[in-house]
Amino acid sequence: MIIDAHAHLVAPPQLNAHRTNLIVAQGQYGYPYRAEVSDAQLAAAAQNNVDIMDNVGTDVQLLSPRPFTLLHGKANWQDIVAWTMDNNDLIARTIKMHPTRFRGVAAIPQKVGAPVTDSFDEIDRCINELGFVGILLNPDPSEGTNESPPMGDPYWYPLYEKMIELDCPIHVHSCNCCNGRESYDEHFINEESLAITSLYKAAIFKRYPDLKIMISHGGGAIPYQIGRWRSHYQMFGKPRMYDNQGPELFDDILKQFWFDTVLHDKNALEHLFKTVGADRCVFGTERPGSGGGIDPLTGRPYDDLKPVIEGIAGLTPDEKTGLFEGNARKLFSRLDL
Amino acid sequence: MIIDAHAHLVAPPQLNAHRTNLIVAQGQYGYPYRAEVSDAQLAAAAQNNVDIMDNVGTDVQLLSPRPFTLLHGKANWQDIVAWTMDNNDLIARTIKMHPTRFRGVAAIPQKVGAPVTDSFDEIDRCINELGFVGILLNPDPSEGTNESPPMGDPYWYPLYEKMIELDCPIHVHSCNCCNGRESYDEHFINEESLAITSLYKAAIFKRYPDLKIMISHGGGAIPYQIGRWRSHYQMFGKPRMYDNQGPELFDDILKQFWFDTVLHDKNALEHLFKTVGADRCVFGTERPGSGGGIDPLTGRPYDDLKPVIEGIAGLTPDEKTGLFEGNARKLFSRLDL
Amino acid sequence: MIIDAHAHLVAPPQLNAHRTNLIVAQGQYGYPYRAEVSDAQLAAAAQNNVDIMDNVGTDVQLLSPRPFTLLHGKANWQDIVAWTMDNNDLIARTIKMHPTRFRGVAAIPQKVGAPVTDSFDEIDRCINELGFVGILLNPDPSEGTNESPPMGDPYWYPLYEKMIELDCPIHVHSCNCCNGRESYDEHFINEESLAITSLYKAAIFKRYPDLKIMISHGGGAIPYQIGRWRSHYQMFGKPRMYDNQGPELFDDILKQFWFDTVLHDKNALEHLFKTVGADRCVFGTERPGSGGGIDPLTGRPYDDLKPVIEGIAGLTPDEKTGLFEGNARKLFSRLDL
Amino acid sequence: MIIDAHAHLVAPPQLNAHRTNLIVAQGQYGYPYRAEVSDAQLAAAAQNNVDIMDNVGTDVQLLSPRPFTLLHGKANWQDIVAWTMDNNDLIARTIKMHPTRFRGVAAIPQKVGAPVTDSFDEIDRCINELGFVGILLNPDPSEGTNESPPMGDPYWYPLYEKMIELDCPIHVHSCNCCNGRESYDEHFINEESLAITSLYKAAIFKRYPDLKIMISHGGGAIPYQIGRWRSHYQMFGKPRMYDNQGPELFDDILKQFWFDTVLHDKNALEHLFKTVGADRCVFGTERPGSGGGIDPLTGRPYDDLKPVIEGIAGLTPDEKTGLFEGNARKLFSRLDL
Amino acid sequence: MIIDAHAHLVAPPQLNAHRTNLIVAQGQYGYPYRAEVSDAQLAAAAQNNVDIMDNVGTDVQLLSPRPFTLLHGKANWQDIVAWTMDNNDLIARTIKMHPTRFRGVAAIPQKVGAPVTDSFDEIDRCINELGFVGILLNPDPSEGTNESPPMGDPYWYPLYEKMIELDCPIHVHSCNCCNGRESYDEHFINEESLAITSLYKAAIFKRYPDLKIMISHGGGAIPYQIGRWRSHYQMFGKPRMYDNQGPELFDDILKQFWFDTVLHDKNALEHLFKTVGADRCVFGTERPGSGGGIDPLTGRPYDDLKPVIEGIAGLTPDEKTGLFEGNARKLFSRLDL
Amino acid sequence: MIIDAHAHLVAPPQLNAHRTNLIVAQGQYGYPYRAEVSDAQLAAAAQNNVDIMDNVGTDVQLLSPRPFTLLHGKANWQDIVAWTMDNNDLIARTIKMHPTRFRGVAAIPQKVGAPVTDSFDEIDRCINELGFVGILLNPDPSEGTNESPPMGDPYWYPLYEKMIELDCPIHVHSCNCCNGRESYDEHFINEESLAITSLYKAAIFKRYPDLKIMISHGGGAIPYQIGRWRSHYQMFGKPRMYDNQGPELFDDILKQFWFDTVLHDKNALEHLFKTVGADRCVFGTERPGSGGGIDPLTGRPYDDLKPVIEGIAGLTPDEKTGLFEGNARKLFSRLDL
Repeated sequence: MIIDAHAHLVAPPQLNAHRTNLIVAQGQYGYPYRAEVSDAQLAAAAQNNVDIMDNVGTDVQLLSPRPFTLLHGKANWQDIVAWTMDNNDLIARTIKMHPTRFRGVAAIPQKVGAPVTDSFDEIDRCINELGFVGILLNPDPSEGTNESPPMGDPYWYPLYEKMIELDCPIHVHSCNCCNGRESYDEHFINEESLAITSLYKAAIFKRYPDLKIMISHGGGAIPYQIGRWRSHYQMFGKPRMYDNQGPELFDDILKQFWFDTVLHDKNALEHLFKTVGADRCVFGTERPGSGGGIDPLTGRPYDDLKPVIEGIAGLTPDEKTGLFEGNARKLFSRLDL
Repeated sequence: MIIDAHAHLVAPPQLNAHRTNLIVAQGQYGYPYRAEVSDAQLAAAAQNNVDIMDNVGTDVQLLSPRPFTLLHGKANWQDIVAWTMDNNDLIARTIKMHPTRFRGVAAIPQKVGAPVTDSFDEIDRCINELGFVGILLNPDPSEGTNESPPMGDPYWYPLYEKMIELDCPIHVHSCNCCNGRESYDEHFINEESLAITSLYKAAIFKRYPDLKIMISHGGGAIPYQIGRWRSHYQMFGKPRMYDNQGPELFDDILKQFWFDTVLHDKNALEHLFKTVGADRCVFGTERPGSGGGIDPLTGRPYDDLKPVIEGIAGLTPDEKTGLFEGNARKLFSRLDL
Repeated sequence: MIIDAHAHLVAPPQLNAHRTNLIVAQGQYGYPYRAEVSDAQLAAAAQNNVDIMDNVGTDVQLLSPRPFTLLHGKANWQDIVAWTMDNNDLIARTIKMHPTRFRGVAAIPQKVGAPVTDSFDEIDRCINELGFVGILLNPDPSEGTNESPPMGDPYWYPLYEKMIELDCPIHVHSCNCCNGRESYDEHFINEESLAITSLYKAAIFKRYPDLKIMISHGGGAIPYQIGRWRSHYQMFGKPRMYDNQGPELFDDILKQFWFDTVLHDKNALEHLFKTVGADRCVFGTERPGSGGGIDPLTGRPYDDLKPVIEGIAGLTPDEKTGLFEGNARKLFSRLDL
Repeated sequence: MIIDAHAHLVAPPQLNAHRTNLIVAQGQYGYPYRAEVSDAQLAAAAQNNVDIMDNVGTDVQLLSPRPFTLLHGKANWQDIVAWTMDNNDLIARTIKMHPTRFRGVAAIPQKVGAPVTDSFDEIDRCINELGFVGILLNPDPSEGTNESPPMGDPYWYPLYEKMIELDCPIHVHSCNCCNGRESYDEHFINEESLAITSLYKAAIFKRYPDLKIMISHGGGAIPYQIGRWRSHYQMFGKPRMYDNQGPELFDDILKQFWFDTVLHDKNALEHLFKTVGADRCVFGTERPGSGGGIDPLTGRPYDDLKPVIEGIAGLTPDEKTGLFEGNARKLFSRLDL
Repeated sequence: MIIDAHAHLVAPPQLNAHRTNLIVAQGQYGYPYRAEVSDAQLAAAAQNNVDIMDNVGTDVQLLSPRPFTLLHGKANWQDIVAWTMDNNDLIARTIKMHPTRFRGVAAIPQKVGAPVTDSFDEIDRCINELGFVGILLNPDPSEGTNESPPMGDPYWYPLYEKMIELDCPIHVHSCNCCNGRESYDEHFINEESLAITSLYKAAIFKRYPDLKIMISHGGGAIPYQIGRWRSHYQMFGKPRMYDNQGPELFDDILKQFWFDTVLHDKNALEHLFKTVGADRCVFGTERPGSGGGIDPLTGRPYDDLKPVIEGIAGLTPDEKTGLFEGNARKLFSRLDL
Repeated sequence: MIIDAHAHLVAPPQLNAHRTNLIVAQGQYGYPYRAEVSDAQLAAAAQNNVDIMDNVGTDVQLLSPRPFTLLHGKANWQDIVAWTMDNNDLIARTIKMHPTRFRGVAAIPQKVGAPVTDSFDEIDRCINELGFVGILLNPDPSEGTNESPPMGDPYWYPLYEKMIELDCPIHVHSCNCCNGRESYDEHFINEESLAITSLYKAAIFKRYPDLKIMISHGGGAIPYQIGRWRSHYQMFGKPRMYDNQGPELFDDILKQFWFDTVLHDKNALEHLFKTVGADRCVFGTERPGSGGGIDPLTGRPYDDLKPVIEGIAGLTPDEKTGLFEGNARKLFSRLDL
């Protein structure tokens, strides 16, 4: 079975058209102001997505909302909640339409300055009522404006405890970026790197050994820049941040994270597997999404990663099975497929 | 000959002690307020550095000021200039003490909101009078506060034209970071990625084919995340940003940059060489610096990269010679060694 | 002929869905980033609108973009221009589909801090190339955040001179409102009042007697609050603002503005006609829009204003003809129907 | 008996001269820093006001402080309190001088960010000790800078409960305006409109049926713009804000407010009475004040409203008695005349 | 003849009452909005002042507006100008009433961010048309909020050149203070100290030897803190700020300023005369003003300084004549008495 | 015995070099990030200081950290604490090296917005564990940016109670200044004046008669400007701030403070002693520091104050003994020498 652990809802245009109205409404239509998408509109979009999966041989996708259209920052809290629910509900409805092809990863309501516990109601609703299998966490709800504490900050600890209690993984994926310097896409990678280093510095897995964190896009820059952090660990990390009680190498810490394979490059994937171990990686494509360009050398889309991984010589059959299915089942323990 | 193209001044404590006074002075001692470092103090520090080089077999280092102690942001312009000159002068004096072992890469005065042309006097002084061979450019003088235009912005074009005219390379290296979310070290990598993507989006090498830009630390995240940008290029870059007149692949654009080897990891280096080509890379260690931790597996410092590169099987002898010497001579055409 | 001088584009959902993408893109897809709406999508929306017109007997609508979805404030200028053009182009395409049923009133690009002359290219394009008959002006591009000069400020004078030269009216209609206190709908009325009083205080029609300004929604609060301003005129306006050279009464000044009939209430319309004169009013419904609620007393939508006006006893047949057709022809001299 | 329910203290110049000193003092003279106005100074001002009343046949005025000279915003709290007390005390002294001609409506101390309960001491003092009959509420203590929650916000509920308990009406009247776009006078009308729509959206009279709220100046724009809100109520208000449990029409909600007659125009007054019912209106002139201009057509001041109302044909004798006296007695139940 | 060189207008309450209206008006009454003070009102205030002078034997006072009621900061420019003119005009009218007893020192319009040349029209009007003899300069138009350049900054140089050309002195006296930490009175002294040190650091009298600057209140803290600046001059001032071309001692620089005697303490006055020389001091009392308290030890007001100075043993008769008359005639060369 | 009550640590360059690294680290090296100064480095600096003392005959210095290099404002709290401890620890180590020549006055951690009680741990550590004899208080931790409450504000009362309980004096000395208008040196004097007037207005010694406060630099401007405050006390202070229950004169209040002699001028010192009494003053030189310039008239440094004071004719032998030793023993009751 091929499980794509990183995919986003392909919504009908009515959803994003509603987002425009939501942002300008400012209470004019009452609260909550929810999107209306008909079954027919949704069914067309869902079928389109199933076709895309069939085209490359994906059996199941874990769907989360399209991150850069989520609403965080300093938006009205009631609008943040309504829009998060709209997105999660559309995923839930999509799953109902194709119960063997999709599972849900929930967006959660996040706002600059709001305590992270304010998101718990929606987490409970999605995991317990809608049967979702993980959450998508924006590590920077300030959207590039430097007003969010980094992920190692105690601000986030109640969420980590909540997710451990639910035995549910956190998919780290930044969303919109409004600082005028980076696009959301550039921000993704930077935030992924920062998530890892910040959690490393906070010795988070010493505090929460059962925490499950999946970093998007093969871990940002970190597997590539590992030398810098190995050295840092020996000079400052181990003696100070881990009180000389940490593992021998930074590599040991990095292997406590999970990674997806959304890298679209065979060499990079090989580097990832060598660096963190294929057993800490799960197949993911973000398809359809940023990898949808057609490679002129192959004529195939860059995000058609299954044959790429299958073609990596150094992987054992077990490792491949793990990548395509087993690791996802381990990480997303509520998957129930 | 082993040329280390990325190294920073190891200054005596008097220099950074002066920085403390400079920041609090606010004009109390008049302008310019310059550092005073005696020849004896400097000689001791320089000898220490030569010993470090001898220890690993480096013949020549290209010295620039320690980036995270440079003064940018919204500091007083006169202080920015004075401090930049202090740093460059200490490098020049170091070179005079060991004329066969060092060359200079100049810091330039940069301030949020100041036109980039304000740095030209110091560029001229360093290149023409002090005989420096390149400049160190902070791509984010706002120091993490989102107030600098990215490197593809026309704000920077006069500088690019100036450097082309001087046939002098730009070493891209961010400096201090004050946003409270990232450390300077985390900011380095993010800014390097952003420098590449921003220059790519601006089709900068179409406009300035003779521009020489060296990205620090093996190019941030980009060689690892190349798949994402290959796809972007096919979908948006080529048709829109290059008006369908760009090269066939994003790889062709990436190969127009130069990269150093400050990665401290053999696998990462192999990935870099495979991705951008060994002929676009120059040996660099940032030694002594962030790579100074001792690898428990080898007992050697992570930044002792010469044997690492020598041990990479896939490199031809010519490529190795290029990495250690020839490429640097090509990139830093004023090297004169 | 029944001409509805105040109506907005009923766009297919693809347009507002694009607005969501536009706002988050931040240059990720290159500039300009334009909306894509197919002819089929547009045709369906346009036919829907024609049906709505037929339903109440409207022959022609003057279409402007939906104001509260326009993009002003501090948005990226290239995005403001692209989105304005997208909206105007959709109107132009709608007119082409139904050349006897629609005419265009152009949105113009506006940004906090940008000189008003930056909008002239798009004005020229719309009036001269697309054949539009007026412009829609947001009197508060700061969107409720107090950063726009009021309409009497010299900031706006170049625009007034431009519109006089084109013999083209300005339809005053505020857009989005982001101050967290008012909704856009509440802001509309407040801005309309402020437009009138600010222009009155600046003695604008003494300076520009040929300027044609149409205030939305029956003039905000002013016709109802006229007593307050009559008194103000005698105490301060005439002696100070008009140097004792103004007309006898504030009423004389108010009658230099034009007003639409978007009031949805017979008594209010009677008050409007009595106060400013039916010859200064043009039929407008904003249909479909905020008046679309069904009156439980009549079972008809509140914005079905034609029978309401026809039923006003005090109007002469000439006045009624003027309201429904003649005044619009006078005000929109380029109407060419 | 003619009761003018909306009039402001005509203070001797010493009061406003003190305000200048108060603002600049910044604690230089200690706290509290109170105004000093002699009995002779006050008596002259009071007699002047009585003459003004006699001139138009007013028997009793309800005096509140001149709103635009009140001190709110971010002023020093001790100064806000002192200045509020100065104003209320001068009113109390005026009443003592002319006990049959005046009653008091108290200003209350308000500051951006301070809880509304901070005003309760002064409310108690004025109502219980000084015998005032109502309070003047600034719905926007941020003075046009968008930092006050609108009146429907729960921020205000403790005040509403307090006033219900005291059976005392709230006279809604904004004060100073510092946003650089509107004058205080323009702000008055906009805030009155916003007070009504905000309280309507919050279904405030469902929550507090005994709350008595008098909107100044004939209700801002709302009676004139009623069509817009009738439609809103059918589309959004009734189904969402009132959970389908509200009255049939928006008109039923509007009639739960009280209105004064400070409109200075016969047609506007007729529209007001038709729209909200004469039984919800109380005579008010704000005389001497903004209506003091002399109408060139009549030679009389615009704020001489008694003959205007007496001349409205459609009012019954009972309605007129109610307007001039009975409604005020009902609304201001503590009037005791 | 006793000339009191530092006194402020004692205005009737109507002036400050107008200031209250001016601040809230925000254009509601048109521009310019000028104060109205009747001759009778002014005459009473002027006579009161003459009596106060007679009471202590002062022949002539140099009147400037009451500094802390001036309007600077970010106020509306038109209001700043109008209020400055109101104040200067009242002084001119007072002089006309008592031509042998008063001379004028003009307030000038100042605003944060406005070029200092914007004040030149009012300077010309006051000096050339009204016959004033000096100007009162607020060295901190930002009123304690750190947004004004200090007096040594080139921002001020055009003003210095203007005053040299007019041969007219600058009376340095800060005005209102709004930073919430200092009262205006505390700010006065701090600004006076800063004026001296800032002008000293800029070597202003080397640049402008003919500039005449009178520091209020005996020079703030500087004559008392002179030791600190003597040392500073030897260590940094002479070598750096004066390029080793300054006078021998800081004292020589301090003696280029003028000082008034508004110190209200015999010992302090003795210290002042010893430190800067009696020939650089002019008699001033600021009476009536901050020195109006009654000394319990003498029963006389603290600002009755004539007998205090007369009682200083160390002064020669010539020095005393100079203090009371001659120095003022030298400094205010246009005095014409 | 000559006790110099106002002297600052002369640290080796390593300390201020560390400050540079501390500020840029932003957590990169973990928390706490402490300075490393070797015994040899410290011993050289300490010996240097002892030599300076011997040179002018000082027996004991009370050492506090160099104020303008302390870290306050909005710096990271953990860095503020670490840096404060670094400084205090270096003083403690210096005392251990020369136990008969030095005593410690502790810097305390202060941050804008942090409650003053956050400094208590370090106070306890320094007084109780390290044996320090007083604390150095920055009255403006906002460093010139107007964000600190003045010293009379209740914000500070818990600290005053703490210091009374410890019977330990507070040395008032502002530190860095970042407002771009004043240098730290100018800020010192202004803050000292403000400390006195703010505490006076708050009647602090009525509330805390046992509080011991030493104002640096001879009391800023206040002894010189005493006339202004004497008058203020009679007009406003006594009746309002002291409820007519204060002492007869402002002088009586001023004499409740302690003052050091860091004035570097004989006349000024005479004025100080006359004004506040020699029994409220303690010998202090701040040597080596701002008084280190060489007086061209004497050839001696300005801060060699012992002979200056010895040469003041008006002082009795007892007063001199008190100044040099006795008063310090009284004020610093924990001195134990």
